[in-house]
Amino acid sequence: MDDPRWLEPFSTQVEPDGSLTPERLIGEQWLSAIGGIFETTPDDADDQVVYRVYSMPVPETGSELQTCTTVLEPGRVGREYFMTKGHFHAQRDRSEVYLGLSGEGLLLLATEAGEHRVVEMRQGTVAYVPGGWAHRSANTGDGPLIFFAAYVGDAGHDYGTVAIQGFPIRAVEGPEGPRIVPNPSYRGPST
Amino acid sequence: MDDPRWLEPFSTQVEPDGSLTPERLIGEQWLSAIGGIFETTPDDADDQVVYRVYSMPVPETGSELQTCTTVLEPGRVGREYFMTKGHFHAQRDRSEVYLGLSGEGLLLLATEAGEHRVVEMRQGTVAYVPGGWAHRSANTGDGPLIFFAAYVGDAGHDYGTVAIQGFPIRAVEGPEGPRIVPNPSYRGPST
Repeated sequence: MDDPRWLEPFSTQVEPDGSLTPERLIGEQWLSAIGGIFETTPDDADDQVVYRVYSMPVPETGSELQTCTTVLEPGRVGREYFMTKGHFHAQRDRSEVYLGLSGEGLLLLATEAGEHRVVEMRQGTVAYVPGGWAHRSANTGDGPLIFFAAYVGDAGHDYGTVAIQGFPIRAVEGPEGPRIVPNPSYRGPST
Repeated sequence: MDDPRWLEPFSTQVEPDGSLTPERLIGEQWLSAIGGIFETTPDDADDQVVYRVYSMPVPETGSELQTCTTVLEPGRVGREYFMTKGHFHAQRDRSEVYLGLSGEGLLLLATEAGEHRVVEMRQGTVAYVPGGWAHRSANTGDGPLIFFAAYVGDAGHDYGTVAIQGFPIRAVEGPEGPRIVPNPSYRGPST
C-alpha cells in the first residue's frame, strides 16, 4: 500500500461454533495440562480440550487491539465448572472488553489485593475488565460458552500470578444452580 | 474498592435491536443534520434518524477501550445507501475493531492519501480498522445494520477531515445489488 505507516485492514468471520474463517492462530487447553487450576484433581481418563482460543494477532503495540474468540466447553471437575486459566495483563493498567456470543457462564474478576467480582455472561453481554483485574471465565451452561474479546495491543499476559495465588473465589454447581464460594486454597492477601 | 488505581468492572446487555440495558450514552444522527455527506441532497420531508450510537464511555486514556454499538437504519438518498459520517481517529495510529451483530452492509475505509478498501459486514464479521484508515459504514440491507465496535481509549475522533475531503468511493444501489463507485466530489489526493 502507499503509506507504510498503516497496517492493511483485514476481516474474518466468526462461525456459530466460535471458530474463524479463514482460520488464524488457534490455542488449545487440555484438561491434563491445566488440571491444577481446579479444586479437585481431574482423572487422566477424562482428558479433553477445555477451551480453544482463536486469535487475530496484530503487532503488540499500544495503538493496536488484540482480538480473539474463546470457546469454553461445558463440563465440571467435581462440582467446579470448566474454566479458563485466568490471567492479569502483564501491563497491569491495560483493559479488556468481552462480548458474549452464545452459552451461559460467569466471568470471575479479582485484583491482586484479593477483591473479587462476578459478571453473568450470555449472548449480548458486554463485560468491561478494567486494568488491575485478573479475569477467568467459567461455563455454567450445557453447551459451549463462546465470547469475543478485545484488549489493548501491548497488554501482554501474566498467567503466573494467578497460577501461584489462585483466585479468591470458585464457581461451583450447587443444588439450585451455579454458586460462588470462597477458594480455601487461595494464597493471595485476605480482604 | 480497595485499590484506587483500578476502575470498577461493569457490564451491559446488547439487546437484539442494538440498544443497551441499562441505557448509557446515546447519540442520534438525523438525515437533516448529516445530509451533506450524500451525493444528492435529501428532501427535508424525508427527515429521520439515520443511525444511533450507544456508547459505553470510559476514561480517554491509552490503557482503556471505548466501546459502542451502532444501529444504522436501512434506506437510501437517491441511489446511495444510508451511511455513517465516517471519521479518522484524532490520534491517527489508533486502531479499532468491529464485530457485526445483524444486518448487511459495507465498511468503507480510506487513507488520507486516497487509498480505499471495502469490507462486507454481516453477523459475525470481525473487521480490523488499523490506524490511518478513516472508516464509514453503509447499510445495504433491508433491516438495520447493527455492529459492536471497540477502539483504543485515547483515539479521539476527527470528523473534519472526512467532512472536507469526502470519501474516495461511494456505496450505491445498482441493478444487480450494491456497487462501489468513485466519488466525483472527492477532494483528497488522487491515487
